[in-house]
Amino acid sequence: MEREVKNIRALSDSIQAEHEHVVVASVNDHHVKLAVNEVDYPWHNHPNADEFFLVTEGELTIEFEDAERVTLRVNDSVVIPAGVVHRTRPAGRAVNLLVEPKNTTTEFRDSDA
Amino acid sequence: MEREVKNIRALSDSIQAEHEHVVVASVNDHHVKLAVNEVDYPWHNHPNADEFFLVTEGELTIEFEDAERVTLRVNDSVVIPAGVVHRTRPAGRAVNLLVEPKNTTTEFRDSDA
Repeated sequence: MEREVKNIRALSDSIQAEHEHVVVASVNDHHVKLAVNEVDYPWHNHPNADEFFLVTEGELTIEFEDAERVTLRVNDSVVIPAGVVHRTRPAGRAVNLLVEPKNTTTEFRDSDA
Repeated sequence: MEREVKNIRALSDSIQAEHEHVVVASVNDHHVKLAVNEVDYPWHNHPNADEFFLVTEGELTIEFEDAERVTLRVNDSVVIPAGVVHRTRPAGRAVNLLVEPKNTTTEFRDSDA
């Protein structure tokens, strides 16, 4: 039985990486992850899975292929629907909570593969 | 296509209730919710579903039937596994993010029904 308390800020402070995803929790068939972003991530989509973002530190811009974009600051959240091509661009170091299925798959755009 | 940005602090500030759950996002077969807790909630369990808590404001104690308890402060998270009987006791006003299946069910303990 899991009753372990995890502090996501302490977890974030322990991650020194340009881009890393760490599993915070297993919740049924989904994972809650912490994502650290210090560099841009290439265009991609998750064909069969929605993805939830909640920024917990810094500022993260998510760009969409059709030129729309959203800029998320602390406490801002958004859902990226399945199949929507996007990329992430942090302003410095940005950290976000991520909710996605454990079996999510990722397709990169050919030009970035 | 959903690209609506929701700020969970602004959402929390708009909720004046002793106990309320609001859906923040639909993510596949799961919901991300914001829970506002100003009063104790009775003993219950979710027979078929894990539940993820992340405290975003205040302090929330989760008690378990076997007398264990965890006290969560801002950025603290925990998973309540399916079937585990628990109750929540906020210290004043506590707000938490919740991740659970959309079809989750709740069983209350007889003495509290």
